[in-house]
Amino acid sequence: MSKEITSRSQDYSQWYNDLVLKGELADYSAVRGCMVIKPYGFALWERMRDQLDRMFKDTGHVNAYFPLFIPKSFLSKEAAHVEGFAKECAVVTHYRLKNDPNGGGIIVDPDAKLEEELIVRPTSETIIWNTYKTWIQSYRDLPILVNQWCNVVRWEMRTRLFLRTAEFLWQEGHTAHATSDEAIAETLQMLDVYATFAEEYMAVPVIKGVKTESERFAGAVDTYCIEALMQDGKALQSGTSHFLGQNFAKAFDVKFSDKDNKLDYVWATSWGVSTRLIGALIMAHSDDDGLILPPRIAPLQVVIIPIYKGDEQKAQLDEKANSIAAELKKAGVIVKYDNNDNNRPGWKFAEYEKKGVPVRIAIGLRDLQNNVVEVARRDTKEKKSYSMDGLTQTIQQLLEDIQQNMFNKAKAYRDTHITEANTWDEFVKLLEEKGGFVSAHWDGTAESEAAIKEKTKATIRCIPLNNPQENGKDILSGKPSKQRVLFAQAY
Amino acid sequence: MSKEITSRSQDYSQWYNDLVLKGELADYSAVRGCMVIKPYGFALWERMRDQLDRMFKDTGHVNAYFPLFIPKSFLSKEAAHVEGFAKECAVVTHYRLKNDPNGGGIIVDPDAKLEEELIVRPTSETIIWNTYKTWIQSYRDLPILVNQWCNVVRWEMRTRLFLRTAEFLWQEGHTAHATSDEAIAETLQMLDVYATFAEEYMAVPVIKGVKTESERFAGAVDTYCIEALMQDGKALQSGTSHFLGQNFAKAFDVKFSDKDNKLDYVWATSWGVSTRLIGALIMAHSDDDGLILPPRIAPLQVVIIPIYKGDEQKAQLDEKANSIAAELKKAGVIVKYDNNDNNRPGWKFAEYEKKGVPVRIAIGLRDLQNNVVEVARRDTKEKKSYSMDGLTQTIQQLLEDIQQNMFNKAKAYRDTHITEANTWDEFVKLLEEKGGFVSAHWDGTAESEAAIKEKTKATIRCIPLNNPQENGKDILSGKPSKQRVLFAQAY
Repeated sequence: MSKEITSRSQDYSQWYNDLVLKGELADYSAVRGCMVIKPYGFALWERMRDQLDRMFKDTGHVNAYFPLFIPKSFLSKEAAHVEGFAKECAVVTHYRLKNDPNGGGIIVDPDAKLEEELIVRPTSETIIWNTYKTWIQSYRDLPILVNQWCNVVRWEMRTRLFLRTAEFLWQEGHTAHATSDEAIAETLQMLDVYATFAEEYMAVPVIKGVKTESERFAGAVDTYCIEALMQDGKALQSGTSHFLGQNFAKAFDVKFSDKDNKLDYVWATSWGVSTRLIGALIMAHSDDDGLILPPRIAPLQVVIIPIYKGDEQKAQLDEKANSIAAELKKAGVIVKYDNNDNNRPGWKFAEYEKKGVPVRIAIGLRDLQNNVVEVARRDTKEKKSYSMDGLTQTIQQLLEDIQQNMFNKAKAYRDTHITEANTWDEFVKLLEEKGGFVSAHWDGTAESEAAIKEKTKATIRCIPLNNPQENGKDILSGKPSKQRVLFAQAY
Repeated sequence: MSKEITSRSQDYSQWYNDLVLKGELADYSAVRGCMVIKPYGFALWERMRDQLDRMFKDTGHVNAYFPLFIPKSFLSKEAAHVEGFAKECAVVTHYRLKNDPNGGGIIVDPDAKLEEELIVRPTSETIIWNTYKTWIQSYRDLPILVNQWCNVVRWEMRTRLFLRTAEFLWQEGHTAHATSDEAIAETLQMLDVYATFAEEYMAVPVIKGVKTESERFAGAVDTYCIEALMQDGKALQSGTSHFLGQNFAKAFDVKFSDKDNKLDYVWATSWGVSTRLIGALIMAHSDDDGLILPPRIAPLQVVIIPIYKGDEQKAQLDEKANSIAAELKKAGVIVKYDNNDNNRPGWKFAEYEKKGVPVRIAIGLRDLQNNVVEVARRDTKEKKSYSMDGLTQTIQQLLEDIQQNMFNKAKAYRDTHITEANTWDEFVKLLEEKGGFVSAHWDGTAESEAAIKEKTKATIRCIPLNNPQENGKDILSGKPSKQRVLFAQAY
């Protein structure tokens, strides 16, 4: 069964697609670049979304909902934003279909042309700041700490399930503040929330940093990011938090009067993570047998599989297994007892392995007599016999161990894949042979950055927060540099 | 403060808009017909959504996500469906914007025309059944019990906040079954879920029934619905559950092999409720001072307001109020202590009244000395002094009482507004003067139904489930009729 999955060494990219499709996370759809998120994949997204939502609410944010459509003219209001987003996007031009009078079936009604075209939101800064204009008059109306969970559309030419799809699900926070300092603090707070979520829930270690100007969000003063490393040595940007300064307030004329009745433009942030995180999760942990999901966000944490012959044996096992499941459930563990007759135990083992369920409990007649069960952990594939006494606690501890072990393993891999390069040859060789982050000097110019990208496909993933300052020479141009930055090829 | 709100008797429609806008549930947006759901309104929707989601999951359903866009040709595949939905909808014709070479700003790139136009989903039967074709081969793949929470767009000409907007949020369940009986049972089960939710959570009594052919969902064999009654005597369709027969399976060629290896088309249902429910909620309960929200879905159940002069008094009250709030919170009550200095108690009283918070606790210095608080319930506006001892239990009981009282009141109104009419004059007079549901004989023809609608604007809201059979004469045509049906003017 697991042989269905292409191995990483054979074809990494096909391995990824196999995991998504055969792990039943998502499916291609009839619409170019749009995916169907299948129930198992959506349950995983729900677990991630719910945890993030709790973290947003714990930091004082509330949810709201803004329109799907953005009037075309809005995109032009912020000079940098228009360059970044008024490009590949879905444009609504008409609002009616009709029967072709010439018998050609259903056609777009030429009489129902919109006066101004509407863009399906690629991101919502413009429509939201246009709204905030009516919400904000005084410092008393600030801060506004709003988040939105929604779908967005960017008409990508080359798409990959979860990693880059024309439509994707995400959250976008949009906050408004009275001071620059407060907005910057918010930007960094949300970066921390993302990093905590990635590390403590997804078990994916991340580097927090700031983007260079060329990689900055269109309309931001500064873009902060968390960067993760995949098993093929490529980096994946997993979340961004933008300090927008007063750019959008100016574009949409949003001013507030402060305590002294002085008018000023409002300060802004925006921050988002998307279903792309699922791509990161898959590629950070999984193996050639399938997905490996961290317990804290796994839609199913424990599966119990009976091993029996005949109805009488099954009845005996059902009774015990159901009571084990009930106790685990009571303790808050997400558990399923799979006693479906249609499939054999071996098939089930492979199936749940493929789906990355952290813990599998197998129970047979002899186990019942010996008061034990066989427990297999998905991350290490280790199997061990445990007493049924105190099993719930054993399993809870095991889930914690798996969570920690997955993080440690990913971190060890990541840490050994941050390598310093001091010559161009070294730099190129590292990228070609070892992959991962290459820490190298950069002269701070967009020209050198572009030239390096052109030659190696590597981009500056970020300038890490609290980056040590050190004099050196740009890895390509040889011009003076004040610090090393992290280069990598990236998704 | 409450005087901001237009009274029902003065202008019912303006009263409704005032409640939505001044209760901070939603706002108009820059996009025609699309609304902004504000944080308070969205918190209400979250409470409703989360409860419904629990009920869906308890009945075995799982969530998934399908594309926002539907290829135009898909709409044409089901003959009735195309008539109903291939009309007023948002049509995506292009996928790129560019700078006008003639300096006209951003324009739609004429070179980026889609080969086939995409429709922003007005409902997802077509794209989902196109997907199910790849998911279903055998009876082992059935049933599929999938639900989706998403946004949909119907280009309505006349819009009303929540009641009828171009974009709205909803859930749509789409299930696939091996037998007609099973699909019908599912249709009725979900109708029951909706009715239970409306009555037990929204405190809105509903009538369960089946639609006439003219009011049926485009593509359904039978459309079941729950119908609620608003305070102006108009009905509001609050949820629908459709038995789709094999219509969509045939349109998208979805067959399964049964246990005997015989091929047959799959049986289907779909069912949905939307943010329209918030409109129903508002109009079923609220009064001229603002919203009245039922405790079980109110985003805020209890507000505590201190009445004080000076910081020293405030500090004393803060301590007590915070401990009351903490205890309520521990008991699962959603509570807020509003000790904001910017506003006076009177302003706060009016504000939370306007927002429909079920219970207000006021606490002053003398209360502190007497070990009591003043508790006001929003539904009856009754104020009463309660001991601080056992206050949490008192409040929990009060919340239950309010929930029940709101339902009873709405039900009493509804029950006295189902009136039999036996002559045309009576029928017209009832609709004009009393409103509500009019129970009258109908000959079963679309012609009579249309003629009655033409003359009175009243439609057949439903044929109630288990409707008593009784010989009579159609209220307009005078032709023989076998049963009474419920007529009403409706939203």
